[in-house]
Formats: sequence, structure tokens, C-alpha cells
Amino acid sequence: MNDRPDPQSFPVTPRNRAKRLHERAAYDRDAVYAVIDASLLCHVAYVIDGQPYCTPTIHWRDGDWLFWHGSSASRMLKTQKAGLPVCLTVAHLDGLVLARSGFHHSANYRSAMCFGTAHIIDDPEEKAEALKAVVDRFYPGRTDMLRENDPQEAKGTMVIGMRIEEASAKIRTGGVSDDPADVDAPVWAGVIPVETRLRAPEICPKVPEGVPFPDHLGHFQEGRRLDEVLTESQALYEKQG
Amino acid sequence: MNDRPDPQSFPVTPRNRAKRLHERAAYDRDAVYAVIDASLLCHVAYVIDGQPYCTPTIHWRDGDWLFWHGSSASRMLKTQKAGLPVCLTVAHLDGLVLARSGFHHSANYRSAMCFGTAHIIDDPEEKAEALKAVVDRFYPGRTDMLRENDPQEAKGTMVIGMRIEEASAKIRTGGVSDDPADVDAPVWAGVIPVETRLRAPEICPKVPEGVPFPDHLGHFQEGRRLDEVLTESQALYEKQG
Repeated sequence: MNDRPDPQSFPVTPRNRAKRLHERAAYDRDAVYAVIDASLLCHVAYVIDGQPYCTPTIHWRDGDWLFWHGSSASRMLKTQKAGLPVCLTVAHLDGLVLARSGFHHSANYRSAMCFGTAHIIDDPEEKAEALKAVVDRFYPGRTDMLRENDPQEAKGTMVIGMRIEEASAKIRTGGVSDDPADVDAPVWAGVIPVETRLRAPEICPKVPEGVPFPDHLGHFQEGRRLDEVLTESQALYEKQG
Repeated sequence: MNDRPDPQSFPVTPRNRAKRLHERAAYDRDAVYAVIDASLLCHVAYVIDGQPYCTPTIHWRDGDWLFWHGSSASRMLKTQKAGLPVCLTVAHLDGLVLARSGFHHSANYRSAMCFGTAHIIDDPEEKAEALKAVVDRFYPGRTDMLRENDPQEAKGTMVIGMRIEEASAKIRTGGVSDDPADVDAPVWAGVIPVETRLRAPEICPKVPEGVPFPDHLGHFQEGRRLDEVLTESQALYEKQG
């Protein structure tokens, strides 16, 4: 599978190779980034004293680097200059798949698992850049309108980063896959798609009169799909570089 | 916090005690189950040879027990009769919180982290029950309309279960929490709520003519919130017991 290495692909190793349903798997950056960039929420798995933790958090991406805020792992990371192995996963649920047999019930989804070694970002310049990115990556241009973080705030925020060493995406789309022998059964079968969309923005009642919904949030229109809006934010952010 | 143990609460230990923002945390079964039952998708963290994995999968709950399908951990579990420590996490994103400073940007969410020891469910009766539950818990009454799993299918499906030993829920709701000194800034601040809803069911084109959308899916109406529908499914399932 990885005989001729493709510069656009992550290496495939026992760690990231799909163990089941490998026809749904992909290892190229485009596929992995598409899943990651369409979401604000990820889950990070790490180990402390043999105990796994799975922490939901906000992530952001810059090239092959992923970043997130401090978590329960922070105390451990402080003492681990060599870094901590983690697996950061993003998943989108796209539909419920109802089959004619229990066995073929399923879900449509897009997921990406990323493996790497987490480090605390403690270089002051790198950290300041990351703390801007966590805002501007979702709301491009927004930090230009905000005061700067004060030193206490920067100090009170732990930023963790990792380069993606290996990754895989896994995607299921489409309809039901039933056994041919079951297809004539008089059973309703099909897909119930699900979608996550934005509702109307709720302005803080303390915002001074006359402050409009800003241009930099122009693509956050009521009713739009969250995954599409966040993908657009990432593209805008990268363009503004 | 746990001086007078509450039978409705999970024990609070260093493993599940919230490390940050503990005013958002809860340890009672009602809070934890509400988060779990509103979702089909969870993330399971486990460790193989020191490497953490974070696998998205479908979960279901029966009392204090959580179940999911086989995963990359399956091979390891086969050799580990004592079980494998895991952390199973469910998270819902409810809104984007845009503040007047980078520091106070946030998200509204509901999450639950559950700790336990995963075992393969290999007792044939228990396994058969679990394979019914994974359908009926989401679509109560549906297995009555399906053929039974054949022995090959049951054999080919790994069911993993764990009793929740410890758990915590963490919830953020409401508006922006800005520093009082920032509130007069001429900056748009507020919340953009997000919601996951059902779209219209897409029937498999091979379903024989005249098969209606079934009564047992009556609450899966187009436009309803997924979390509310799945919570209703769990309640119906428990009632049908």
C-alpha cells in the first residue's frame, strides 16, 4: 500500500493502518485535512500512568501541526520534555443507516485519526501566534478587532501542539448495504441524514448600540452547515496568511 | 465533594475529578446519562503498548453498562481476560462563543467522560441481547421486524462492554463571559448556536412498493434535533424493557 511513497500521503504503519473496513480508509493529506478542518471539536487520547483519557477539546491546524488548549495532561506534559504520545480524532456523523438485518445497520460518517507527540508550546512568540490562530482560524481577521491578550492571560493558557506523524481518514457515505437475499423483505430500509447547522447569532445584550454583525463573520449565516462554514474559515485564514 | 456518598452519583476520584473549570462539572448519573443517551457517536480511548488510540464508534447504554462494537482493540482484548482500561467520551457542540478578547472565546457544549474496564462480551446469550440492543436502543421495536442474526454474523461481530466505574459530565451553556473592563468595546460579541437535526429519510430504492415509513420510527421526523430523538429512543427502549 505504501510501496511508492506519495509526498501527499502520510506513511502507513501498523499504528494508523485501518484494522477493519479498510476500503473506507484513506491516508492522503487532502482526505485527512478535509475532516479536521470541517470541525472545531476533536477528542484527544493520552495516557497517564497506564490510564487512558479521552478529552473533548477545540483544535486548530497549521500545515501538519495540530494545536489545542491545555487539559488534564498539562501537568504531566510539564514534566515530560520528550513529549507525550497522543491520538487526536475528529468525527462527523452524517446519517443513520437502517438496514433489513441488524447486522447491516450502520452510520454515515467522516473521521480522521492523527498520531503524534504532544509538546507544550512555551516559546513566547510561538505561543502568541497560536493564541491568535485559535481565534482567527475560526473567525478570520477577528483578532484585529480585539485587544491583545494580557500577559496574565497568556500565562494562564496552556497551548499544546503536535506534528502529525501518521494519520488516516475513514469515510462511509451512501445507502444501505444489505445482503442480496434480504432485499425483498417488506422492511423499510434507508438512510436518515443528519446535519449540523448554525442558528441565528445571539448578540450579547451588553454590546453597545450600533455595532453590526461584523464582515469577518459574513459566512456564518443562519442555516448554513457548520462543517462547510469552518472549512471556508480555514481557507480564508490560510489565504490571509 | 464526596464526603457523603450519594447513591445517584459516581464516586469522585483523581481520575474523573475535573481538573479545570470545575464549576461546569457534575458527577451524578442523571447528568452523565443525559449526555450519553443523546448521542449515537462516542470516542473510546485505550492503550496498546503505551500508544493511545482514540476510536470513534457507536455506543449504547444499559444501566451502568456501556457497549460498543469491536475495534482495533479487539485483538488485544482477546488476549486480556482481565480487561483493558478505557475512557469513553461523548461530546455535543451547542454553540460558538465569540467574546471581546481572544482569551474568553469559547464554545457551548455538553460532554461526559466514563472510565471503566472493557471486556469482550462472549457469552452467547449476553451477546445476542447486546446485538438486539444496538438496534432497538436507537429504533425501539425494530428487531421484531428483522430476521435474526445468523450465526456467522454474530461470530463476525465483536461486542465490547464496560461497567462505568467513574464518570463526569461537563457542560457550558449561556452567553459570553467577558472581563467587565472589555464590555464597552465596540466589538460584536455573542453566541452562534449550532444544532444537529434530522433530514428527510431517504428510502432505499429497492424497498418493495407499499412499505411505509414504520411506526417505530415515528419520532424520527424531519427537522427534529438528533439529541432529542435519541433521548426519546432510549426512554422508549427502557419502557419496552
